[in-house]
Amino acid sequence: MKLLVVNPNTTASMTATIAAAARAVAARETEIVAVTSAMGPVSIEGFYDEAFAVPGVIHAIAEGETAGAQAAIIACFDDTGLDAARTSAAIPVIGICEAALVTAGQIAKRIGVVTTLARSVVPLEELVRRYGFAERARVTACDVPVLALEDESSDARGKLEDEIGRAVAGGAEAIVLGCAGMADLAAELTLRFGLPVVDGVAAAVKQAEALVALGLATSKRGAYASPSPKSYAGAMAPFAPRA
Amino acid sequence: MKLLVVNPNTTASMTATIAAAARAVAARETEIVAVTSAMGPVSIEGFYDEAFAVPGVIHAIAEGETAGAQAAIIACFDDTGLDAARTSAAIPVIGICEAALVTAGQIAKRIGVVTTLARSVVPLEELVRRYGFAERARVTACDVPVLALEDESSDARGKLEDEIGRAVAGGAEAIVLGCAGMADLAAELTLRFGLPVVDGVAAAVKQAEALVALGLATSKRGAYASPSPKSYAGAMAPFAPRA
Amino acid sequence: MKLLVVNPNTTASMTATIAAAARAVAARETEIVAVTSAMGPVSIEGFYDEAFAVPGVIHAIAEGETAGAQAAIIACFDDTGLDAARTSAAIPVIGICEAALVTAGQIAKRIGVVTTLARSVVPLEELVRRYGFAERARVTACDVPVLALEDESSDARGKLEDEIGRAVAGGAEAIVLGCAGMADLAAELTLRFGLPVVDGVAAAVKQAEALVALGLATSKRGAYASPSPKSYAGAMAPFAPRA
Amino acid sequence: MKLLVVNPNTTASMTATIAAAARAVAARETEIVAVTSAMGPVSIEGFYDEAFAVPGVIHAIAEGETAGAQAAIIACFDDTGLDAARTSAAIPVIGICEAALVTAGQIAKRIGVVTTLARSVVPLEELVRRYGFAERARVTACDVPVLALEDESSDARGKLEDEIGRAVAGGAEAIVLGCAGMADLAAELTLRFGLPVVDGVAAAVKQAEALVALGLATSKRGAYASPSPKSYAGAMAPFAPRA
Amino acid sequence: MKLLVVNPNTTASMTATIAAAARAVAARETEIVAVTSAMGPVSIEGFYDEAFAVPGVIHAIAEGETAGAQAAIIACFDDTGLDAARTSAAIPVIGICEAALVTAGQIAKRIGVVTTLARSVVPLEELVRRYGFAERARVTACDVPVLALEDESSDARGKLEDEIGRAVAGGAEAIVLGCAGMADLAAELTLRFGLPVVDGVAAAVKQAEALVALGLATSKRGAYASPSPKSYAGAMAPFAPRA
Amino acid sequence: MKLLVVNPNTTASMTATIAAAARAVAARETEIVAVTSAMGPVSIEGFYDEAFAVPGVIHAIAEGETAGAQAAIIACFDDTGLDAARTSAAIPVIGICEAALVTAGQIAKRIGVVTTLARSVVPLEELVRRYGFAERARVTACDVPVLALEDESSDARGKLEDEIGRAVAGGAEAIVLGCAGMADLAAELTLRFGLPVVDGVAAAVKQAEALVALGLATSKRGAYASPSPKSYAGAMAPFAPRA
Repeated sequence: MKLLVVNPNTTASMTATIAAAARAVAARETEIVAVTSAMGPVSIEGFYDEAFAVPGVIHAIAEGETAGAQAAIIACFDDTGLDAARTSAAIPVIGICEAALVTAGQIAKRIGVVTTLARSVVPLEELVRRYGFAERARVTACDVPVLALEDESSDARGKLEDEIGRAVAGGAEAIVLGCAGMADLAAELTLRFGLPVVDGVAAAVKQAEALVALGLATSKRGAYASPSPKSYAGAMAPFAPRA
Repeated sequence: MKLLVVNPNTTASMTATIAAAARAVAARETEIVAVTSAMGPVSIEGFYDEAFAVPGVIHAIAEGETAGAQAAIIACFDDTGLDAARTSAAIPVIGICEAALVTAGQIAKRIGVVTTLARSVVPLEELVRRYGFAERARVTACDVPVLALEDESSDARGKLEDEIGRAVAGGAEAIVLGCAGMADLAAELTLRFGLPVVDGVAAAVKQAEALVALGLATSKRGAYASPSPKSYAGAMAPFAPRA
Repeated sequence: MKLLVVNPNTTASMTATIAAAARAVAARETEIVAVTSAMGPVSIEGFYDEAFAVPGVIHAIAEGETAGAQAAIIACFDDTGLDAARTSAAIPVIGICEAALVTAGQIAKRIGVVTTLARSVVPLEELVRRYGFAERARVTACDVPVLALEDESSDARGKLEDEIGRAVAGGAEAIVLGCAGMADLAAELTLRFGLPVVDGVAAAVKQAEALVALGLATSKRGAYASPSPKSYAGAMAPFAPRA
Repeated sequence: MKLLVVNPNTTASMTATIAAAARAVAARETEIVAVTSAMGPVSIEGFYDEAFAVPGVIHAIAEGETAGAQAAIIACFDDTGLDAARTSAAIPVIGICEAALVTAGQIAKRIGVVTTLARSVVPLEELVRRYGFAERARVTACDVPVLALEDESSDARGKLEDEIGRAVAGGAEAIVLGCAGMADLAAELTLRFGLPVVDGVAAAVKQAEALVALGLATSKRGAYASPSPKSYAGAMAPFAPRA
Repeated sequence: MKLLVVNPNTTASMTATIAAAARAVAARETEIVAVTSAMGPVSIEGFYDEAFAVPGVIHAIAEGETAGAQAAIIACFDDTGLDAARTSAAIPVIGICEAALVTAGQIAKRIGVVTTLARSVVPLEELVRRYGFAERARVTACDVPVLALEDESSDARGKLEDEIGRAVAGGAEAIVLGCAGMADLAAELTLRFGLPVVDGVAAAVKQAEALVALGLATSKRGAYASPSPKSYAGAMAPFAPRA
Repeated sequence: MKLLVVNPNTTASMTATIAAAARAVAARETEIVAVTSAMGPVSIEGFYDEAFAVPGVIHAIAEGETAGAQAAIIACFDDTGLDAARTSAAIPVIGICEAALVTAGQIAKRIGVVTTLARSVVPLEELVRRYGFAERARVTACDVPVLALEDESSDARGKLEDEIGRAVAGGAEAIVLGCAGMADLAAELTLRFGLPVVDGVAAAVKQAEALVALGLATSKRGAYASPSPKSYAGAMAPFAPRA
């Protein structure tokens, strides 16, 4: 099974971190194809960056689908363009925020989601609400820019651990890492804090494998109906839905 | 006061309908500058079209702001790119769905939102929820494609009236027209049904004038903080936030 | 356009504060007619005072409507008698709590409502819920009696600023002033805290102008149907609905 | 134990119906003192009537408390003035809507509330929400004016039974009668429909006896704190809270 | 009237505490029959203990019903087996958590529920939600094992008072004691804290008396329909529903 | 990997159906060990049966864990004893209702859950709510007793298809089969209705494999903390938690 993992930001080093996390948990027969978005922001921090990361995500999934991928993962914690991708792709599309929450939700009642910057808290709270976890998950930020997670000389790791500590003290029974750039830390943090720490990239790999094995794809009735063929103007023309 | 009204789809005839509806209610000292998005879909029907309309909306608002607009309206009922636009623009940005709901909510308890196609019902229900009207507003579709609203030979008008009739029978005390392309029908439908029928374009003009008169602009703390300057790759490069 | 602003308490000096705030933002063609309720409490602090302020509000709106007002504002933050007034008045009726919330909601995601006394917190939370802001707005009290706001020798201003500071530290992106008696402070507090501070009186003036310009009045179907004509006994007889 | 039952409307024949229903279930040692409000509407149908029934309710409870009542019941299904009464009375105050819902909620999961006129549906839905039954109770109207319930020549009984039938077909496991004027019908309707039919007046008598026996009275901290002494002007002067 | 009070844990000394609390508030004509469950855990702390207390509760209620009880109370704060008991018993069944909340809800807006161990917080939050008090009640734990409440040499009482103090400081207007083992403390704590402290056992006695006096029993339509007769295997065979 | 699948009812033929459905989707390296509960009801229909199925489920999971199972599935759609099992087992425990919902939720926005009997609708609605799908999933019943699903001469299949048809007409985008006894029908129904039909048994197998592959087990902090060692009396003694 070929599984496409799209990094919605354009930072290739983060794609490498994500790919490694995906491969570490993939089934033997799963081939992970990790791609970096070809257009858009170097990191996604809040509503604005997210909007401009969507075309790159859609493009990468369309290309991956043509190349034979059987499912796709959007590996940014705001589930960039997930609803749009589900309408256009024939293969299942998984978001790492949704995957992390449904995974954590099967091993804990109260969940602490720790993300990077304060500006991402409300967008993630809106996702958490949409996925049905408003009463179970609390979102907080550790005040670390996304790319600082890649910089070993920063104090990112310490700040993240401090925030996890506060979440645990506040009643969290499991932690969800609120940024794909933290994907390499889950195992160590699980040991350190003595409770489950869930990385969305790894969780999404297993959800994707699950849907493929079950023979399930996105419903094309209602909200996820295929886009009607129509013309798109200007720079967006290449993305126009075809019959 | 200069008020920018952006039609997020690329259909100029619909921009004309929208501009007329806006001018019909604007204050004498308000100048309506209506623009058609330069890039993206000819009509917005569901999650996919919406995603590709966002860059054009952001671009148009940025240009309008440079040209002296004091507020901007996004004139598509899914409030295309509203959150992203609010982070990047210094001027207030109004969505017609939000404006219509808060207007209708001050004259009625139960609201019927009538939109075009079934695939838009869930996206609008998610907006309605986010704006706090989940318990007060019901979204239904009249099964008319957006551009058929422009086609006088279609049965669009009849289907819309039938659906409004069903909403009223089901307890709606006011109707919100769930598509900018219906902007010219509000007055007539109000008369015909004997209850308030609210068009979001007109409602948004007054909300925009209100914010400007109050000297209020989008908060730059938290969720709507200005995007951090960073580079964007590929086709999205022109949209990169600058310092 | 003639716009009636009713101060539901019987303190004329507060009516003057309110009237000034209303006039400061009214359109040139709007005439503000501010009246003090002729009956009821000198200040409204909690459920009991509110109940006895309603007849005065209804009476003032009925008189104002007869005298040609095209819309009415109820200028107390518990939106005293708003639902009752909407059934009996033919003109639109605006509550300052609802107006402030829908205004703040278009420029911020998370809102701090700062009111006077602790006993008003729950009544306002119930309003906030009813208006759909339960997930977005938090109500707190600065422990200042309403009339102390009028007393320059009190420490009211300091306590209010302290409470706003706490709300901002807790994540509020905009502040709503939870008492009509604070109407004169919005501009200064906006500057001081560097985020939008919304006064409900000013917000309500613009909402009222909006409804009038849009030709919208309260729906008379369902919850806001005109009261059935019937006799009222005793001291309430003058308020009996007529055919 | 002396238990005050206040009929918030001024129709004495309805007070008699209510008193009989109360006495039928009262404990042997409970004396029912039923009073008709001395001021306000002959029947309460919607927001407007309700507002003008409040002073009469408060007045009757204050008088009853002075005369030795140990608890008070507000016998109109919109729980007229309940919050205000709880702040001013030292004795517990019971609303028949709240009492009926908490009673029905202990014998059924899904509840059908059948009220009189369509205009009362939304006000009751707001109560149902406030009492925590939004997911369990549905409110519908049988289209019978309140006073028609007293008129044996009307078709009120038939219409009520039809509406109960619809509620049962729709999944209701118990019925709550949504008007004090239906208090005499609960027993017969229980037999006829083979499921519990709850009358709020009877339910409230038992809740009142319960609170008295438990030695519990309304908390005076927070929302129900006693009104601060202050002057009330005009027709409302007699209701001013005293120190 | 004969009222069965079942202690779902097997600790007879706690049954004595519960029986005393029940008798202290029962009507003169009510006979309290208190029984200790014959099977299951010595104390109920969290989901696991609760599951194994259910058969004993059902058994005790069936025996009590045969012996002439007219209503039954399940005297553990997680309302052990309440839904199952309501389907099988013909007599009304009362849970002390539900009874305490509906009682407290009629004398206060905001409620603090203080339970024993942290592991019980989430199970009780789920109950609080189901009973409609999610917005009004907060559950906290005082970190005292259930049986320590019986041990006078422990610091249980001090820890409980500390936690009540924190709840009051946080805005609670009434306190609900979140364990049947605290039933003897309500009166003293009411005095000490100057606000209503509600014990669920006492509250349940009055709710049970109320239902019996009203002639109301559990609806047998829908969720509480009598179990279909069928065979049960192994150790559960004695509990099989009979025709 | 050894995966235990427990049929909480005692009907071995249904265990065979469940085992076949589990094996059909299990990974090559997964060994499905399917067991029939040794004690409790032959079918689980509503709250009562569910309560008496829990001990058998817990017992089977404990035995399976000892025998080397790495995860356990509870294969009844009311997720019988799931919370209790999660506290006592060291291995992850999956419920088929939760697994089906989180699977369907990744391929559709609106979900129709079709269960057997009307009495199960409310219990399942409570689960749906707890899992966060209250706004997305509707539960209906096809009026077929559980064991009739095993009887080829019954009209069970026709009634189920009729109910699915109604759910689709009402806007469902995916169907969840609300009984483990329907596990063999998912593939055929998917073809027949042209939208995803999700069987919880199959979904749970993949969720269990996912958790094991991710190295995640139930959090032992808070709600799912291991039961405290204590003695259990009578028939429940064998289930007492040990140190």
